[in-house]
Amino acid sequence: MSATDLYLLHANAVPLTADGRVLHLELRSGEVANNIVTVGSEGRGEILASLLDGTTTTAAGTPKDDNNDNINDHDNNTKNGSSSTTTTTTRRSKRGFVTHTGTYNGVPVSIVLINMGYPNMDFFVREVRAVTTGPLRIVRLGSCAGLRPDLPVGSVAVASEGSVMIRQNPDAWEGTAARGETQGEPYLFHGVAPADEELSEALLKELKRSLDGKAGGSDGGGGTAVVGCLNASADSFYSSQGRLDPSFEDRNSDILSSLLERHPSAGSFEMETFQLLHLARLCRKSKVQASAATIVLANRIADDAIAIDRISRIERAAGEAALRAVTSFGDP
Amino acid sequence: MSATDLYLLHANAVPLTADGRVLHLELRSGEVANNIVTVGSEGRGEILASLLDGTTTTAAGTPKDDNNDNINDHDNNTKNGSSSTTTTTTRRSKRGFVTHTGTYNGVPVSIVLINMGYPNMDFFVREVRAVTTGPLRIVRLGSCAGLRPDLPVGSVAVASEGSVMIRQNPDAWEGTAARGETQGEPYLFHGVAPADEELSEALLKELKRSLDGKAGGSDGGGGTAVVGCLNASADSFYSSQGRLDPSFEDRNSDILSSLLERHPSAGSFEMETFQLLHLARLCRKSKVQASAATIVLANRIADDAIAIDRISRIERAAGEAALRAVTSFGDP
Repeated sequence: MSATDLYLLHANAVPLTADGRVLHLELRSGEVANNIVTVGSEGRGEILASLLDGTTTTAAGTPKDDNNDNINDHDNNTKNGSSSTTTTTTRRSKRGFVTHTGTYNGVPVSIVLINMGYPNMDFFVREVRAVTTGPLRIVRLGSCAGLRPDLPVGSVAVASEGSVMIRQNPDAWEGTAARGETQGEPYLFHGVAPADEELSEALLKELKRSLDGKAGGSDGGGGTAVVGCLNASADSFYSSQGRLDPSFEDRNSDILSSLLERHPSAGSFEMETFQLLHLARLCRKSKVQASAATIVLANRIADDAIAIDRISRIERAAGEAALRAVTSFGDP
Repeated sequence: MSATDLYLLHANAVPLTADGRVLHLELRSGEVANNIVTVGSEGRGEILASLLDGTTTTAAGTPKDDNNDNINDHDNNTKNGSSSTTTTTTRRSKRGFVTHTGTYNGVPVSIVLINMGYPNMDFFVREVRAVTTGPLRIVRLGSCAGLRPDLPVGSVAVASEGSVMIRQNPDAWEGTAARGETQGEPYLFHGVAPADEELSEALLKELKRSLDGKAGGSDGGGGTAVVGCLNASADSFYSSQGRLDPSFEDRNSDILSSLLERHPSAGSFEMETFQLLHLARLCRKSKVQASAATIVLANRIADDAIAIDRISRIERAAGEAALRAVTSFGDP
């Protein structure tokens, strides 16, 4: 076995395995669609996969086989009445990514689980781009904390105004790499990366159709509003989002107020949207249209958190809306 | 069901689920040891779990049950000859973390899979700290690219000189949040966060005992050196590590040379070590001792990559060394 059996391309570019797959997502050309909904939790990915054409059972119970590849053939009897067979393929990578590829109302679409954090979003965008050609349309369906009274728990924020990024500045504790003396404010505010207007509008329209006012009330959890706003992404769920933890020297007590002072329209706080929108702009290999919808699981102003039994209902309705929105322009 | 059934603590602190578990790792007090080896890939976690006392089969084939909890009882007949029963518990969280807890030579230890990227390391350190008391000892066993000729593929780098962090500066493309004009260099160099000396020394000693010169040669893949050096962590496997991808406007062609000019002792390039060492220093709830060993899968100077069949052999030998090192001081 030669030393190149792991990577076909060299160590200083985008490495591919011997069977032509990108290293971390384990996908090759043809295994991911140009329309994509990306999610952060495995359960949400399975709910969305169960909505694809011809999928009559959820993917939750599908076995994890040795080939790491899982193909379900179904008679397509749920949506368009066709009698043709529809296939949904599920691939799990050793690095925690899961990709379901099939069709929604006949349009090819993939659902990609990336777990959490902006480096994972970076792996996803770059490795999907490496094994696709032509335009990409990417919708993130995530979860977030709400930053405004009009985004109570159970509502959905669309990042139609784009996203800013907040990161901890380690130099304020450790010193700079060059000089070794501590330097700068403890948190850095970056941005704004804009969202794609056309895709954001489609997402707002479809989410309102599925959700607005519909999933709230009965459990005392408030209404289900759909609101376009500015997103804020952070490099930590804890320090950079201003959550207080006496176990760490975080110097973060004023982050929330600083953010809202700089950006009064900031509505959602999470960890991935900025990198998606930013990389969509940096791509020079065909167009990447990107936007994000995030379900509000906590509200930082009301100091409130969602009841757990509401989440999967909202994920399902928001998932249907995200699939309708991303496929509404056809196959790019 | 009340709105607090998901989170026991409020939205502005460290949230816990109704059964007392931290939200993303899904662990509660007693489910994670104070000695920990943390890994990035599921397979590596399973190899290490198979080395725990009384574990006679690998965890790879264990089922994923509905309770998300998996307890293996074994007669402890492999290491110390005792006839008592040893238990290894495996917990998989919905967010992609997997924790195996048991004992190694009778000392409690956990193996925690965190996947990739520094925000995942942040989740791990903060949530483990939230559900433990007393000192913590944490060894990362990861993979990396080698930056020096004395770290060929198959060798192991110990971050005994600490770690620096390199991140993309989005303001150089998107503009600052405050002013909207582009600003600064495209990449920011942060650091140095030091490693714990005592734990680094134990790690070097045990790795040399298991590996130095032993696992190389026969497949033409070079020797297996164990080298103490400075680590460099990055927020991307691609742009911030200077890998060239014509699909994106990355402006990153001089990162490798800039890093080696600033830090000639930099030996390993990966994504997580800095955040581990940095958070160990920021912790004010008992002491956290932390160090990291990373297996060299590619060498950026030689432009070489490892043969895939060598990896699991080295992971197993390095895993044994990491378990010996982290447990060598007893239960903290």
